[in-house]
Formats: sequence, C-alpha cells, structure tokens
Amino acid sequence: MDDEKALASFLKDFASIQAPKILIHGGGKIATKIGDRLGIESRYVDGRRITDAPTRDLVTMVYGGLLNKQIVAQLQTQHCNAIGVTGADGNLLKAVKRPVAKIDYGFVGDIIPDDVNSTFLYFLLKQNVVPVFAPLTHASGEILNTNADTIASVLAIAMSKHFDIRLIFCFEKEGVLQDVNDSKSVIRHLNRALYEKLLNEGSFHDGILPKLENAFTAIRSGVKEVLIGEHDHLLANTGYETKGTLITA
Amino acid sequence: MDDEKALASFLKDFASIQAPKILIHGGGKIATKIGDRLGIESRYVDGRRITDAPTRDLVTMVYGGLLNKQIVAQLQTQHCNAIGVTGADGNLLKAVKRPVAKIDYGFVGDIIPDDVNSTFLYFLLKQNVVPVFAPLTHASGEILNTNADTIASVLAIAMSKHFDIRLIFCFEKEGVLQDVNDSKSVIRHLNRALYEKLLNEGSFHDGILPKLENAFTAIRSGVKEVLIGEHDHLLANTGYETKGTLITA
Repeated sequence: MDDEKALASFLKDFASIQAPKILIHGGGKIATKIGDRLGIESRYVDGRRITDAPTRDLVTMVYGGLLNKQIVAQLQTQHCNAIGVTGADGNLLKAVKRPVAKIDYGFVGDIIPDDVNSTFLYFLLKQNVVPVFAPLTHASGEILNTNADTIASVLAIAMSKHFDIRLIFCFEKEGVLQDVNDSKSVIRHLNRALYEKLLNEGSFHDGILPKLENAFTAIRSGVKEVLIGEHDHLLANTGYETKGTLITA
Repeated sequence: MDDEKALASFLKDFASIQAPKILIHGGGKIATKIGDRLGIESRYVDGRRITDAPTRDLVTMVYGGLLNKQIVAQLQTQHCNAIGVTGADGNLLKAVKRPVAKIDYGFVGDIIPDDVNSTFLYFLLKQNVVPVFAPLTHASGEILNTNADTIASVLAIAMSKHFDIRLIFCFEKEGVLQDVNDSKSVIRHLNRALYEKLLNEGSFHDGILPKLENAFTAIRSGVKEVLIGEHDHLLANTGYETKGTLITA
C-alpha cells in the first residue's frame, strides 16, 4: 500500500483476473505516518496495534476512506467496477469487540465467521461488481479494527458455499521459504503432511506461521487452493504455473 | 454532522422511513477541524472550498472514511442495512474535474448527470440496502470533492425513472422563510409561480437561493416533491403534515 508504483502494478494485475473476485487490503504503515502527524502514537503488543479511540478514528479514516477510495478509483480506470466496503457496509462482516484479558487491544474486532453476509456478496459478484474490503468490521454501532489476513480467510470460507475459491495472500516474498535465509528456496507445493513434517523439523520462521495456520484453516473449511507469494507471479495465472507456494489439502 | 446528539436523532428518524431511501451527507466543519490538526489550511472562494491535493486526501479520509462509516455503523444498529459509498464505488457518479477559469478550485467534481449508475442503485434498493453517499465523485482514477446538495438533486432526478421521488434537504432552519429575520415565517407550500413572485419582491436571502434553484431543477426534471427544513419535522411524515417547506411544480 505504501509503494505507489507497486500498488498500481498490483491493481492492474488484479483487474485483469476474469473470474469473480474480492480484494482485501491493509495500510498499517500509512496509518502510522498520518497518526504521527495527528499526534496519535502507534503502540503495538506482539506486533498487533493497540486501537484506542483516537486510533480507531485514524484507521477508519485511513483504511476506510483514503486508501480504500484510492484503490476503488484506480480500479475504475481499469474497467473493474469496484465497490469499497468495510464489514459495517451491507452488514457484510459482524464482529465482537475483543474481550479484555491480559491486554486491552481496544477497538479490535474478532469476526463471527457464521455472520458473513455471503448472500449480499454473492449478489454483488453476480452484478460484476468487485468488493474491495478495508480491514474494518463492526459491532453495536462501532467500527472495529480487524486483521486483513483473517478477513480474507473468513470471506474465502464463507464464499466457498457459492464458488470454487482460490485464496491468495500477496506479500513481499516469492513464497513460503524452506530456508528463511535463501530467497530461492520457495516451497512450490505444500500439503498438510509436508507442512507438519517441516514444522517438526523447525523449517518455518515466525513471520510465516500465522499465514500458514490461516491457510490450512481455509483449506480444511472448503477453500480449494491457497497461494502465498508476490503478486506479479500469482495473479491472473493458474496455481500450478506460479512461482509462489500452492497450498492444498 | 458535527453535533453528535442531533446526528443520532436524525439517523433514528431516517432509519424509520419505510420506503426505499438514499442518504447524502456532508461534513465540512469536521474536515476543517482535522485539517487544522494536520496543518492543511482550509481556503474558500465565495463559500466554496479550494481542494488542493492535500485537501482532497483530507476530505477523502474524513467524508469517505470517518463520517461515512460512523453513519453506516450507527444505521446498522437501527436495523437499517446501510452501505457507505462515494461516486467512485460501483461507478455510481462520474464527474469531470472542474475546468480552471478565473479560479482553480482544484480537485472538485462537476457531475455528469447522465452518468449516474441508476441501475446499480436500483439493484441495491431492491435488496433493501440503503446507500449512504459521502460528497465525493471520481474521474480518471481520482477522487473529487463534490457539493452534497448537487449530488442529492442529481440522484433524485436519476432515480425518478424508477420511483416517485421525494427529495428532502435538511438544514438548521424550519423551512424557507418569507422574512429571514422571522424564524416563524415559514412558507409552507411553494410552487414556481409563487417562487418567481417572491423572488421579484426580493424576499429570499442569499443562503437559500442555490437550494431553491436546485429544488426547482429537480421538480422540472421528474422529482415529485422537494421538502426543505429541519429533519425532525420532515422525515417519516407525508409532506403536507410537515412544518417545513413543500415545493411542487
């Protein structure tokens, strides 16, 4: 999101996908930058943002407004009829405010997976409209900050009732690496058996583990394929031709 | 928008309207306040905001993000299935960037009335989804700042193909006043003939004239009724029982 050129290239590839599609974006770095200008300090525990009331308003502005609408306007020029949404819009994603345990994460939403309005999403897709999600949900009249990867998994699982789903996680690496120090050691095909073998051997670095757990949850719950890698090798291609990591059951 | 209690009361009344409905909101005062904190100066010519690039990003954040999503989340608690949009979303409202004449208004959109995506709006309404418009449109991949009253008129005219339309302008006065210094001198019913008579007599103050011109344009172009006044006397009522001003042909 914070690299204008990479974003434009991503959106061009995304627009060229012919099948019905949904985009989920982030924007944490830009929120932090604008927060700094507003005097809103960004605080994290274990890599997760603490979302107090000013931070909640900040991410609502930056994710739901600035970034979401920039993406939508750019996709429109690519003849991709995008509609920018949060979980509050069309009641698409209900959540509960995360209960306060050892840490008070503030206005953070934990999604209720059974409460995805997949009927409305299905209708949008059938109208050739492309939903673009900001990482925000809602509960009791309030907007809640929510992890984008989790939204992607939950939506993929919910839509697997209607379609064969491919869930694609785009990040800055070519795929899941067998050796974190060797960017060429991409695992091309990962199934549950190989995953558990490599996990036991300690092959995976911390950063990739939540993504992999998310991926296998999706696969177990009806999603057909998960891809992890750089967008320019993943979009508008079939899984088996990509340079990323293909995850199947 | 800048009075939390009045907004909540407005949204409750709005949610109670049983007919298909669309909401268009503003938010200039809050944009100015947040702009001040970001060091973005608000400049006006003849009461219209000059929208340079930083101001464009500001109003995209504040109108399209913060305020739009707050409204949507609050309407959801009133069992009103709102979806927050700008003109870019679903390609609902195309515009052209205002040409630079004596004044460069910057990133301001002049709407192309024939380019309203009324088919998609109709589809949303038929799904019992309630569109909530932030005063933003788009052209060539860019978000443009656009007058909310004008968006309301253009949408009302476009939707009059599908429905009998009542267009309601809510503001802080009880209605159109015959004597600007007498808040009780509300004109209950105004048609074109009376309007032109009073106009020639110099009855109307400057502030109300653009709204009246907008209103009669809508009436001439297929809109059935226009109401102007305070929301608590206008919403969820039939026109003839209100305390506001009813405008007809």
